[in-house]
Amino acid sequence: MYDKGVVMTDERYMARAVELALLGRFTTAPNPNVGCVIVREGKVIGEGYHLYPGEPHAEIYALRMAGKLAQGATVYVTLEPCCYHGRTPPCTDALIAAGVKRVVVAMDDPNSEVSGRGRAALAQAGILVEYGVMMAEAEAINPGFLKRMRTGLPYLQLKMAASLDGGTAMASGESKWITSEQARQDVQHFRAQSAAILSSSATVLADNPALTVRWLELGIDVQASYPHDRSFPSQGQIRQPTRIILDSRNRLLPQHKVIQQSGSCWLARINTDKQIWPGNVEQLSLPASASGVDLVSLMITLAKREINSVWVEAGAQLAGALLQAGLVDELILYLAPRLLGDHARGLCILPGLNNLADAPQFSLAEVRQMGSDLRLRLEPVRKSQY
Amino acid sequence: MYDKGVVMTDERYMARAVELALLGRFTTAPNPNVGCVIVREGKVIGEGYHLYPGEPHAEIYALRMAGKLAQGATVYVTLEPCCYHGRTPPCTDALIAAGVKRVVVAMDDPNSEVSGRGRAALAQAGILVEYGVMMAEAEAINPGFLKRMRTGLPYLQLKMAASLDGGTAMASGESKWITSEQARQDVQHFRAQSAAILSSSATVLADNPALTVRWLELGIDVQASYPHDRSFPSQGQIRQPTRIILDSRNRLLPQHKVIQQSGSCWLARINTDKQIWPGNVEQLSLPASASGVDLVSLMITLAKREINSVWVEAGAQLAGALLQAGLVDELILYLAPRLLGDHARGLCILPGLNNLADAPQFSLAEVRQMGSDLRLRLEPVRKSQY
Repeated sequence: MYDKGVVMTDERYMARAVELALLGRFTTAPNPNVGCVIVREGKVIGEGYHLYPGEPHAEIYALRMAGKLAQGATVYVTLEPCCYHGRTPPCTDALIAAGVKRVVVAMDDPNSEVSGRGRAALAQAGILVEYGVMMAEAEAINPGFLKRMRTGLPYLQLKMAASLDGGTAMASGESKWITSEQARQDVQHFRAQSAAILSSSATVLADNPALTVRWLELGIDVQASYPHDRSFPSQGQIRQPTRIILDSRNRLLPQHKVIQQSGSCWLARINTDKQIWPGNVEQLSLPASASGVDLVSLMITLAKREINSVWVEAGAQLAGALLQAGLVDELILYLAPRLLGDHARGLCILPGLNNLADAPQFSLAEVRQMGSDLRLRLEPVRKSQY
Repeated sequence: MYDKGVVMTDERYMARAVELALLGRFTTAPNPNVGCVIVREGKVIGEGYHLYPGEPHAEIYALRMAGKLAQGATVYVTLEPCCYHGRTPPCTDALIAAGVKRVVVAMDDPNSEVSGRGRAALAQAGILVEYGVMMAEAEAINPGFLKRMRTGLPYLQLKMAASLDGGTAMASGESKWITSEQARQDVQHFRAQSAAILSSSATVLADNPALTVRWLELGIDVQASYPHDRSFPSQGQIRQPTRIILDSRNRLLPQHKVIQQSGSCWLARINTDKQIWPGNVEQLSLPASASGVDLVSLMITLAKREINSVWVEAGAQLAGALLQAGLVDELILYLAPRLLGDHARGLCILPGLNNLADAPQFSLAEVRQMGSDLRLRLEPVRKSQY
């Protein structure tokens, strides 16, 4: 269909579009991250990316930059252009009106309102449409959005931190600073990219964490890539992920730190109470399971509320329950190079696990050093696939 | 003293000498690994390495290959040439007799019978002696020999294998194949390079392991680098590390597999017994500590018996005791990407450890993927240094 030289060029421009898309990773939720590059006669004449829901899509920014030069140009976009009136008019109309000649799409939008129709609309208008360039890379930009659209569940990352022998705290409960400052900074980065942070009332009662993104703890690299015009945003201006606390026995109080931070906080409960909560707090009434709030129902509810991705920071019990329910997409494990011994508190409670063959198994997706610690990214091996 | 160009050349030839030295890593014990390269007018005219104790040293093989061309040549050797009559005549005499012009030495021999005197003997004979080229690389060839010479203790590598949460077995004891085949092959490689394998009677009674190097399990890469002339050695011909079993309560029996394998087996006991043991078995009578055989005394005894390096495969108790005694030089930890939960058996028993600040700490020296597992090499951080 096209020779090798053209393919290489297509991939080069699409790589730039992917790079642009990622600039939105802190702020586009619940929308997907999308990047767009417009090229004419071997020159980039427009670039754009989606940054905030309700604001223009990547294609619109790129078309604005290209202006009249867009006529006859090639457009690279990481996700199929939308063809319906949402919060903004359809991008397909804008591309057709601009008179572009060719549109290269990395992947289709799984949103059932688009899903191939965007491409079809362009083709019907006589635009040459290519499809599938750097599809894997484009998939990786939006794990949360894509999982929610395809399955009705959010993408769940389970964070764990332990010593080499799986200890999370001494028998006394002493646990502060098991991992290094770099690892804690990395956690802030993950929080900032997530739509929600999930924890449990047990963790809140034990540690009273704020579970917020803290500007000063993000690290200068992340601060530099956080969306800003002239000045960096301050603490009050950065997007706070929704804090979701599993609280089946209504143990949380308005005084807890998670309640008192800016941004939404949802209490995942079986029965709501009549207390007066601050305006940012909402009680979700959810079905019960044997051990508390039913986790699958919670995840379905979160997806319906457009939560794409959930970052879990909790104790051994919730971690084990999420794993056993098959809800975990990624395990992020920080290993501190220490040994805490056999009296330390364990990483993960897995009730009913008696045989090695039933132990949750993972494949190693990435290993990185974080200060003195290691960070492992692990993906569960779904046994039913084998 | 010499210009940059010469230094680069020196390092190139010394790198080859290091490479040659490592060919002896399975068979030179208790001697050090040494490699030698002889160069004349930019051409390598002789190469040699030490392979078996009692056989000629690296320099002698290299001089034999060089023949009369050695006159006026430069000799690169990873360890200072010996200057005394041991099992073989002094290499310094041979180098002087051959009429070499210059000898480049990576590091001194810490053996008190040599230690600078080899270099002095050469210099007194009018040979130009250079010293310190690639010293760090030369150090790394002989961790065991060097530690024993310098401290009177063997170099100890502690092997551990666990799940991500530090589990070594299910509560039932089920533990077979927690790690991958590649990790087990890697263990065979470490065994083959060690002078001794240390384990405990608890491990022998529980698992009845053979604790041998098995030719077929070494992997083809290691087999190819194992010393051989025309044919690969078979199981009976490979060097078996001395098997050392901590057996303070005299629980081992002549029927156990470790006893019945070829190669020496030493029982580290407090009191010897009068049983009739096979000829390869020796009982060591050692001082007692509160928890059994005194480990420091054992290590001093092993070093006196010319054991350079000890590879430990044992359970959580011996692992913890060796760590707490400060005897561990390297921790080799295989992590299988699984979670075994809170009822699993733990990696390491550390009696009396109550505060996080006292938890054994390590620095990460290396991380490698071994099949589906990770292998971490960790060096203990000696707190007194800080």
